Amino acid sequence: MTNNEDILITEVALRDGSHAISHQYTVDQVLKVAKALNDANVPYIEVSHGDGLAGSSLQYGLSRTNEMELIEAAVSVADKSKIAILLLPGIGTLHDLKEAANLGAKMARIATHVTEADVAQQHIAYAKELGMETVGFLMMAHMAPVEKLVEQAKLMESYGADTVYVVDSAGYLLPEQVRERIRALKQSVGTKVGFHGHNNLSLAMANTLVAIEEGATRIDGSVRCLGAGAGNTQTEVLVAVLERMGIQTGVDLYKMMDLAEDIVAPILQSPQEITKDSLTLGYAGVYSSFALHAKRAAEKFNIDSRDILIELGKRKVVGGQEDMILDVATEIAQAKRSLVLK
Amino acid sequence: MTNNEDILITEVALRDGSHAISHQYTVDQVLKVAKALNDANVPYIEVSHGDGLAGSSLQYGLSRTNEMELIEAAVSVADKSKIAILLLPGIGTLHDLKEAANLGAKMARIATHVTEADVAQQHIAYAKELGMETVGFLMMAHMAPVEKLVEQAKLMESYGADTVYVVDSAGYLLPEQVRERIRALKQSVGTKVGFHGHNNLSLAMANTLVAIEEGATRIDGSVRCLGAGAGNTQTEVLVAVLERMGIQTGVDLYKMMDLAEDIVAPILQSPQEITKDSLTLGYAGVYSSFALHAKRAAEKFNIDSRDILIELGKRKVVGGQEDMILDVATEIAQAKRSLVLK
Repeated sequence: MTNNEDILITEVALRDGSHAISHQYTVDQVLKVAKALNDANVPYIEVSHGDGLAGSSLQYGLSRTNEMELIEAAVSVADKSKIAILLLPGIGTLHDLKEAANLGAKMARIATHVTEADVAQQHIAYAKELGMETVGFLMMAHMAPVEKLVEQAKLMESYGADTVYVVDSAGYLLPEQVRERIRALKQSVGTKVGFHGHNNLSLAMANTLVAIEEGATRIDGSVRCLGAGAGNTQTEVLVAVLERMGIQTGVDLYKMMDLAEDIVAPILQSPQEITKDSLTLGYAGVYSSFALHAKRAAEKFNIDSRDILIELGKRKVVGGQEDMILDVATEIAQAKRSLVLK
Repeated sequence: MTNNEDILITEVALRDGSHAISHQYTVDQVLKVAKALNDANVPYIEVSHGDGLAGSSLQYGLSRTNEMELIEAAVSVADKSKIAILLLPGIGTLHDLKEAANLGAKMARIATHVTEADVAQQHIAYAKELGMETVGFLMMAHMAPVEKLVEQAKLMESYGADTVYVVDSAGYLLPEQVRERIRALKQSVGTKVGFHGHNNLSLAMANTLVAIEEGATRIDGSVRCLGAGAGNTQTEVLVAVLERMGIQTGVDLYKMMDLAEDIVAPILQSPQEITKDSLTLGYAGVYSSFALHAKRAAEKFNIDSRDILIELGKRKVVGGQEDMILDVATEIAQAKRSLVLK
């Protein structure tokens, strides 16, 4: 891997994509996918539970295989690609980070809610100490105004992040919203800037191209769209589009297309598509974990769960505030009743 | 349907989407889909064989049901939506057009290769005579330089087209290529301007938004992406995105989402996604009908069919020139051999 590529891609099918298969990756699958990605010259391959190291739990979904075995497997077949891990402070620990580094992971992506960069300080510092390349991964980036995002990115930079990512976790951002965010970061931080998109509004590719236009050089993709919600920017398609635009990624297009079709597609039980649920989440801009709660509340009050999710999005409700869901449902039901009475 | 909507959508799942189910629509399915689309206030619903009226044939694929029965069914349940038909001169005839009009079709979309607008003259004139709204549908729009596209659009206008569409049949166009095409048409023709995108490069939504930004007001979408190749701009997602942008379509978002999930998705045997084949077609910018020929030629010469398709795209080979496929394959095989010998 030379360093003069225009855009460096991180393939997330073995991490974010884990959501799409309920965290059921086997060692054999990871060996095959990672080997093929390495062979196609993908610079970074992320391997972790969908919710980051130590995410395997009743709450986030149990992994079929210990992720450390999966990381070890990926490292064993990757002589060109670097293996990355994702870690959410509060879920993963410094111990997990060290274990992954010892197994050969070379990049640590420390992920926090867009307004909570401060919880990443220790983990980024420790990853640096372990000799890893570091990324500050600002999730649900649409939930903070641009100035707040910039402030949080600066924190990530001050902790030692080599790159700061704008992460559109809910697939909510419109292209112009990506543009202003990437532009602001490019003007304000000295790190490299990255973008991670989701396709809930069918805008993952559009947003990625806008991010690149504004100077993002680190880009996430997932082969065959494997990712949470409607999936991510489809890597093999991204490589094709960037080739058409004359932008270098160093990735072998034919090999990416082949591995998507022959190795990754058979892993999926059903293809990724934009369903009613994923579209609703992208339209409302809320956590996917809210969907089930909202459905239950909607049934209880005989209202439309979409109204609940949209209202939660407007109020910028975050994880941990699930009790708000019932409050919102109650309010909507009351408003509906008073409309009927009028 | 009022006339003050910003953007008027034509739903093509019952025409272009017919490709995705090998033209197997039943009267019952069309009744259900058209009724739900009408109920969701979709302005235009296109109903025809995937290759337009009279497309049912061994060459283009046999329809399960006579399309005139399908048109009649759609008309019978659409008291708000207008039923549109597609006609490719050379496949469909004036007689077919008249029959569709007699059954209640209100819009005729006359489709030609982007450089062959002149074959549409008679059909557009006749459609006007029949009292139909008319569209000149310039297919494979990437294959002509912008000036040529403008010239052909002006021909469509001179024949009486109320709207001229830029049709990205191969899903090949990049956003900036859509921008220059729509902009040029807006500057040069007096008709309304429309855009029909395909998602082979995951850019259908991006291209549609750029088209709208440049002044296109007639937009095609397909529910749940049902269409040739990787499908079209996904209608229910488009409605959601435009709502988020404050652009009115008059379409009921929730109803669109519901009908996509409950009525259209079950019709598809497998979800639409961007596969190796559809990505190759979009990357190369060639007719989907070339794919099978190229695969056969590739096997014969032991080369990669993608190399053939990409070369055909560069040479702007069009339908009817299939004999070029073997020539190109021979050249590639020879070049490969001489490389080995060196």
